[in-house]
Amino acid sequence: MADLPNLGDIRSSWSSLSVEDRQRIFVRLPRSEAEELFLHLSPADKVDLLQELPTLDKRSWLRLLPPDDAADVIQELDAVHRTEALGLLDDQTRREVTALLAYAEDEAGGLMNSRFLRLRPEISADEAIRYLRVQAKAAVDPIYYAYVLDVEQHLLGIVSFRELFLAPPDKTVAEVMRRDVISIPEEMDQEEVSRQFSLHHLMALPVLDKNKHMKGIVTVNDIVDVVEEEATEDFQKLGGVIALEAPYMQMNLWQMIQKRAGWLTILFVSEMFTATAMAYYETEIARAVVLALFIPLIISSGGNSGSQASSLIIRALALKEARLRDWWRVLGKEIASGFILGAILGSIGFTRIMLWPTRDIVYGEHYFLVAITVSVSLIGVVLWGSIMGAMLPFMLRSIRLDPATASAPLVATLVDVTGIAIYFTIASIVLRGTLL
Amino acid sequence: MADLPNLGDIRSSWSSLSVEDRQRIFVRLPRSEAEELFLHLSPADKVDLLQELPTLDKRSWLRLLPPDDAADVIQELDAVHRTEALGLLDDQTRREVTALLAYAEDEAGGLMNSRFLRLRPEISADEAIRYLRVQAKAAVDPIYYAYVLDVEQHLLGIVSFRELFLAPPDKTVAEVMRRDVISIPEEMDQEEVSRQFSLHHLMALPVLDKNKHMKGIVTVNDIVDVVEEEATEDFQKLGGVIALEAPYMQMNLWQMIQKRAGWLTILFVSEMFTATAMAYYETEIARAVVLALFIPLIISSGGNSGSQASSLIIRALALKEARLRDWWRVLGKEIASGFILGAILGSIGFTRIMLWPTRDIVYGEHYFLVAITVSVSLIGVVLWGSIMGAMLPFMLRSIRLDPATASAPLVATLVDVTGIAIYFTIASIVLRGTLL
Repeated sequence: MADLPNLGDIRSSWSSLSVEDRQRIFVRLPRSEAEELFLHLSPADKVDLLQELPTLDKRSWLRLLPPDDAADVIQELDAVHRTEALGLLDDQTRREVTALLAYAEDEAGGLMNSRFLRLRPEISADEAIRYLRVQAKAAVDPIYYAYVLDVEQHLLGIVSFRELFLAPPDKTVAEVMRRDVISIPEEMDQEEVSRQFSLHHLMALPVLDKNKHMKGIVTVNDIVDVVEEEATEDFQKLGGVIALEAPYMQMNLWQMIQKRAGWLTILFVSEMFTATAMAYYETEIARAVVLALFIPLIISSGGNSGSQASSLIIRALALKEARLRDWWRVLGKEIASGFILGAILGSIGFTRIMLWPTRDIVYGEHYFLVAITVSVSLIGVVLWGSIMGAMLPFMLRSIRLDPATASAPLVATLVDVTGIAIYFTIASIVLRGTLL
Repeated sequence: MADLPNLGDIRSSWSSLSVEDRQRIFVRLPRSEAEELFLHLSPADKVDLLQELPTLDKRSWLRLLPPDDAADVIQELDAVHRTEALGLLDDQTRREVTALLAYAEDEAGGLMNSRFLRLRPEISADEAIRYLRVQAKAAVDPIYYAYVLDVEQHLLGIVSFRELFLAPPDKTVAEVMRRDVISIPEEMDQEEVSRQFSLHHLMALPVLDKNKHMKGIVTVNDIVDVVEEEATEDFQKLGGVIALEAPYMQMNLWQMIQKRAGWLTILFVSEMFTATAMAYYETEIARAVVLALFIPLIISSGGNSGSQASSLIIRALALKEARLRDWWRVLGKEIASGFILGAILGSIGFTRIMLWPTRDIVYGEHYFLVAITVSVSLIGVVLWGSIMGAMLPFMLRSIRLDPATASAPLVATLVDVTGIAIYFTIASIVLRGTLL
């Protein structure tokens, strides 16, 4: 049997391994390495491994996890397995996990750890240090802050280990602690939670319920994963896919079709209006086949400028660089850039037609008018694409839908239908009396 | 004069404010709040504020920053202002900043902080604690670990504050420390650094040079920003835009055009091949204008399935869920899903044409053959789009370009030209002897 690769290699290639390979590797690892690996797997990957183990082993692995991680794992299970898994936990952890399961996965409450260091305000710095030594063993590692709570669990302040050490031993915790504590409500969305971390550059944030009782802490480590996850979702949506729930390599064919067929069908059905629109101009096309040649060029330019605009605006909205109320400033910017970009493409198109060696054979005797039609249409379509691409995310946000739904393919599709109308309208004006 | 909004509101709306508004607000804040705000701004935002201040004020604000943040700010300046700014620092910080400036911005060395807690292995836990109390003031806050170095600055191990406290006071640091330390080389790319944090769930990673001397630490806080930044770049690239260097709302018209016109022109020039391809089929179109009606529908379906595939693969490659060597497994998946997705769209298209009330007027007497042509072409084009969209990121990666360059518009454009060829080839087979 070949030697196992080292733990670092196993971890970094984990997501590209098949479930069978994973189980084979997992059971062959020494216990300490297996634990190290297991602790850092995603909840779904943990479930994959646990499924195949006998009940007693399951218990030992589940109990290895802190309550927030255990809750994440149990959240992945169906009702039957959930009850079974809860039964394998010790009483205290089960209570904490059950409480955590009541939160939505993507809320601050769902991210938080309910084990944190608590201090009473009236004890001395010296007593606090001695007390923390004992408490520390049950808390998350590493320790960032201790939280000072009154008897009703209201958060009064925070104090770091270091601040306690630097303080004169007889000062009370209340005298040493910082009172201006940033906290987050338990129902805050994880995207907003990650923004709070990014704004305030903190290591951990306390989570409070409606009555200002402290319920737990969210640490910056959890946030790195959240940021990756949210970025992946938006990225896949921009590409016109429903966000995958698992890495690409682990999705089977049927799951993949489910994530892609819906949008593809919606886009296809919408795009059918291009056929309807073109049928409307069928006589014009029959009279001037040359017009048909430029249809893909013109509508795709509109789609491209639209997906540029929508990708910029979706991301700006996600990072809160732009707010809903900024829509008219964005509109102004996009009208200006859409016009200039359209003019650039229009002049390239114009030059291309005018300088083509066989222009009078390919484009006919009225090639100059065709060039005018194409370049004016390009300005109109690129301008329209930029406006649509930029405004659609705002519209979606204003009706409380995710702006990332304004995917590149969706914007392109919407612009295609109008692009055809713009093109043929301009053609009928410019070419009236000659080709049409 | 109206009251200032509170600091939290100012911070979260900062990126959507104009430079003038920012300066106006900044000078009106009480010093402590202004410091709090300044410390957490991005390097570029810090520069915007500093520019307008008199030299003495500049010095006071620059000296407020730890060396890594100061280096980030100075990196943003041109050569003249850089020398001036370095002159404003104290000697020790200037040396550290100059050393940091030698690293590329997106390497581990460019992210790291050179102030960290150092311990010698032979001292006792008790001495270590006393020593750390003194050292702590100069180090980053909060403290995660102390790093145990030999006289030549080789990293021997790490020990947390807490581990020192829990240890018997007479044990040496060498006996308490952990020796299996994960470290990163100074030239590691920031995207890989962020992956290391995500893999190992650590708060800080030590950075070593080629000779294994410890140079500094990168903390998880820095990584949240890196992850956001990398995701934004990839997102904008997927939309067909060169990654912006500043938030959308702060880009002026000229900068915006620069970031968009290049790709738009490249795509436009490539898309011109559709006009060339269609000119090649001009006689077929003249004979059967009905064929032209479905061109946008068919090529856009190829583009849509292509952008689905490319967005999935680009993200999978970025997160290392798929490796270069997985290309043939991906190809297999995409052939299967492309075929099924094409068949779904093909049957919708077939049904649409066959059930259209005025089918024999709009599509002519051979509408059945037209329906066959359209639906077979859809299968071919969607299959081709999925393959191209999935393979292009692999090709780019294999020649060491960024897979995210395979933007939705680029894939759509490449698929458009081939889509026309596929469509007319199938048409000439199916319709030979009837329409063509």
